[in-house]
Amino acid sequence: MAGILQRNLRLRTALCHLRPSSTFSSTATVRPSPVEVQRSPFLPTSASWQSGVSSRQKHSVADGPQSSPAAAPHRLPFSTITQEDLAFFRKILPGRTITDPDLLESSNVDWLKTVRGSSELLLRPQTTEEVSQIIKYCNSRNLAVNPQGGNTGLVGGSVPVYDEIILSTALMNNILTFDNISGILTCQAGCILENLSVYLEDRDHIMPLDLGAKGSCHIGGNVATNAGGLRLLRYGSLHGTVLGLEVVLADGRVLDCLATLRKDNTGYDLKQLFIGSEGTLGVITAVSILCPRRPKSVNVVFLGCESFEQLLKTFQLCKGMLGEILSAYEFLDSECMRLLNTHLKLPNPISDCPFYVVIETSGSDPTHDEEKLHNFLEEAMSSLVIDGTVATEESKIKALWSMRERVTEALTHDGFTYKYDISLPVELIYQLVTDMREHLGDRAKSVVGYGHVGDGNLHLNITSPSKDPALLAAIEPFVYEWTARCHGSISAEHGLGLKKRNYIHYSKSSQAVALMADIKAMLDPKGILNPYKTLPDNMNK
Amino acid sequence: MAGILQRNLRLRTALCHLRPSSTFSSTATVRPSPVEVQRSPFLPTSASWQSGVSSRQKHSVADGPQSSPAAAPHRLPFSTITQEDLAFFRKILPGRTITDPDLLESSNVDWLKTVRGSSELLLRPQTTEEVSQIIKYCNSRNLAVNPQGGNTGLVGGSVPVYDEIILSTALMNNILTFDNISGILTCQAGCILENLSVYLEDRDHIMPLDLGAKGSCHIGGNVATNAGGLRLLRYGSLHGTVLGLEVVLADGRVLDCLATLRKDNTGYDLKQLFIGSEGTLGVITAVSILCPRRPKSVNVVFLGCESFEQLLKTFQLCKGMLGEILSAYEFLDSECMRLLNTHLKLPNPISDCPFYVVIETSGSDPTHDEEKLHNFLEEAMSSLVIDGTVATEESKIKALWSMRERVTEALTHDGFTYKYDISLPVELIYQLVTDMREHLGDRAKSVVGYGHVGDGNLHLNITSPSKDPALLAAIEPFVYEWTARCHGSISAEHGLGLKKRNYIHYSKSSQAVALMADIKAMLDPKGILNPYKTLPDNMNK
Repeated sequence: MAGILQRNLRLRTALCHLRPSSTFSSTATVRPSPVEVQRSPFLPTSASWQSGVSSRQKHSVADGPQSSPAAAPHRLPFSTITQEDLAFFRKILPGRTITDPDLLESSNVDWLKTVRGSSELLLRPQTTEEVSQIIKYCNSRNLAVNPQGGNTGLVGGSVPVYDEIILSTALMNNILTFDNISGILTCQAGCILENLSVYLEDRDHIMPLDLGAKGSCHIGGNVATNAGGLRLLRYGSLHGTVLGLEVVLADGRVLDCLATLRKDNTGYDLKQLFIGSEGTLGVITAVSILCPRRPKSVNVVFLGCESFEQLLKTFQLCKGMLGEILSAYEFLDSECMRLLNTHLKLPNPISDCPFYVVIETSGSDPTHDEEKLHNFLEEAMSSLVIDGTVATEESKIKALWSMRERVTEALTHDGFTYKYDISLPVELIYQLVTDMREHLGDRAKSVVGYGHVGDGNLHLNITSPSKDPALLAAIEPFVYEWTARCHGSISAEHGLGLKKRNYIHYSKSSQAVALMADIKAMLDPKGILNPYKTLPDNMNK
Repeated sequence: MAGILQRNLRLRTALCHLRPSSTFSSTATVRPSPVEVQRSPFLPTSASWQSGVSSRQKHSVADGPQSSPAAAPHRLPFSTITQEDLAFFRKILPGRTITDPDLLESSNVDWLKTVRGSSELLLRPQTTEEVSQIIKYCNSRNLAVNPQGGNTGLVGGSVPVYDEIILSTALMNNILTFDNISGILTCQAGCILENLSVYLEDRDHIMPLDLGAKGSCHIGGNVATNAGGLRLLRYGSLHGTVLGLEVVLADGRVLDCLATLRKDNTGYDLKQLFIGSEGTLGVITAVSILCPRRPKSVNVVFLGCESFEQLLKTFQLCKGMLGEILSAYEFLDSECMRLLNTHLKLPNPISDCPFYVVIETSGSDPTHDEEKLHNFLEEAMSSLVIDGTVATEESKIKALWSMRERVTEALTHDGFTYKYDISLPVELIYQLVTDMREHLGDRAKSVVGYGHVGDGNLHLNITSPSKDPALLAAIEPFVYEWTARCHGSISAEHGLGLKKRNYIHYSKSSQAVALMADIKAMLDPKGILNPYKTLPDNMNK
């Protein structure tokens, strides 16, 4: 299969998309066309990028033999917004129907600033009923909708591709209930993850997920993308911790599966369909989630290893000796450390090593936890690790965690970044970095590997001084074919979104992709929900 | 909604179904009709039950105003097996195409001996390819199929209702792979849960689920019914621990989602659809599952409490003080203890109390675990519990666990049992038992409550000397309406199967049921897979 796909892969070409002037037609017209931009993610919004050249003057990214599988396909024949549409939205969302281009700006561009839409309408509902009215109307009018949470996604799934209406959950930020006995929280989809964490910590609980974007990501978006993050090793995936969802379907019906029960075997577990569907099957409006007790004792260890093999042996030892208190086992390589030192001036807390590990324990008894950790460290230091440091105070814990959490930020300072989020059998995850480094030679500026060892999840990042189509052609499909050969996943936790949708065949069988398309057609026959995302172009009508 | 449903509920009538003689037509004929039997589950197969009266002489259970929502509906217009069909099956499954009525007997009757089918054909494939060929053929011939694992289900989901072909996974019992580093096991669907446990224990791991039926239930059946069991509190549900499935769809296509990765966000998580779908959407042929490390230290405590309120306070204390080593918190009431004493001669290991708790800890350090347990018990004994005993040796652990695990068995000796498996907010679970006891007065022989406190899951069981339609009418819809009022689930872990399918509306919205029907129609347009199960009759064509 990989061979066939390879033959179909074409050189990636990227276009700077330029924002069209904001005008609403009173009748349907052809909308601005291509949308994907590839530029240095740390470039500020510049005049040249936003010059007055209309995107209509650009050819469609997907229309030539040179276009990349990651580029946007042609705009689908959705309607365009009319004055009558605006009047309808203004009536149901007075003051929350946004058309000011300046206010739309940040919602049209993704966090990495690599994908840009040209939506001219942002809706900010506050209630499920309002979402239902919006979607029902859009479905009847054949208007495409881009559901948007905190817009922190990394695969271009959270922004419009063309002129889709942006439906933001930002004002749906109420916590609905919290049961202190069961630890079950229900809240609206727009609650920011960190706000939920703060709310729960006051109530002796924590969220079962934690990730770098917690300060801005929404829980609805987390669920829609099946976010993984730092606590998955301990508390499992959202497929296990999400107990209920309320979802507005493509025809505006409200699907109430907002159960607050740990167990419910009355029929198919429908909510599962929407976890990880990236807003393509319905708009998540409320979430019920099982939250663990807040641990009484947290420790963080930062260790250095001579080789990835030693790092894996340390993981095995750690699983055995720390057992139930192990809550994270993350790694970064020496190249990550170099970027942290160079770009963020973060000093290495230990001596220089080829590999570094961040281990976190969370338990209910500080004395027991420290004793377990001590015994483990004594054993590990005797043969497996070169150097290490332990933190029990919150400030030092945060400092050690930042060595892992700020790698992404350091990369943005290193150059244009090609990002890959790969699942592999754990013993193989670093081999891909080594092979890629050898494969690219001096064509890349940096090739770095970090990620969640405990989950077999590698973040492979490759930088170059600027966008480099030749480098990209050397990386892809190499990275995908390598992953497919090892039965890995080409997107462990980031999703497919716009950027990876056409690579799905590397990780999913054709039967599975066909079934996905059937489900999409069943739930959203007009395809108005987050079009151009998740499904490959040949399945997206 | 409950009111409407109440009006629709009708008195349950039960029929003894009698095995038809085994004859195959060479052309399609009308098949035997009704199938549900309600009899004392501990009655041996008796001559009177198996007298020569053909079931065709009985009227259909569902055809009169007296029929119960739990009774079987009319037989749907599936084809019947011809000699040509048999020849086909004998060709692809030589020696494994069973038509001998004696050999079919145990596959036609459920474990509780309350539901009985009249299948005349049992197929025992060994490979996925064989299952695919069978299902493809059945679909083309419009022959209904009853996928069957260990046949340990409690809601009549695992046996044929009429003459569906029984497709047994019993010979699909190979372990495929086990990765000792990640703890990921892949195996065929017919592996017996206990065999997998034994295999894993030798490799320092355990299965993430454990249940009373482990000696005969199949992992494929566990997944198909989303089995809960005793370890859910600690390791979560199968929606979190199952990493991959291989499923044969209704048209015979093999859906390969047998990933062995902890994380994979490449598109919709299709396997989730089949977890808990009770064989109605596809036949699970292989499973990949994440297995925890085997704990180095296991302790079990048996405690007695004065009231359910005290029992809940003990649970809260326990969660705080035992934290990450708590692996089970189960309860039984004094009525359960009476049945254990009376029918199984199991002595109470502590003094008589209104409520009993079984607490299990599983950890990585025996000294730490015992210290945590000691501290907890000291605190609990000072105010919350009346009496208690601790076990650390395996034989005593087993003895204490049997007080909880053998309640079901004790009930079978007490009389005809009406069984309910209810999820509720944990603080409400015993109120239902109390209310039911008061509601029934002396009409019931015993009204007992036990179950998984940690999961908010009550097993409410009501016995009478023999089957008693008047008693049933007093229990239902009372129990369902009570549950619906408290936003509970009428089936926490047992599923809906045949018996509970028409009660789905008490726990699921009409939108959710409609979507279930859409999914069924999409995946199994002819409805050949486990017909009459899970979906309510008005949605099952």
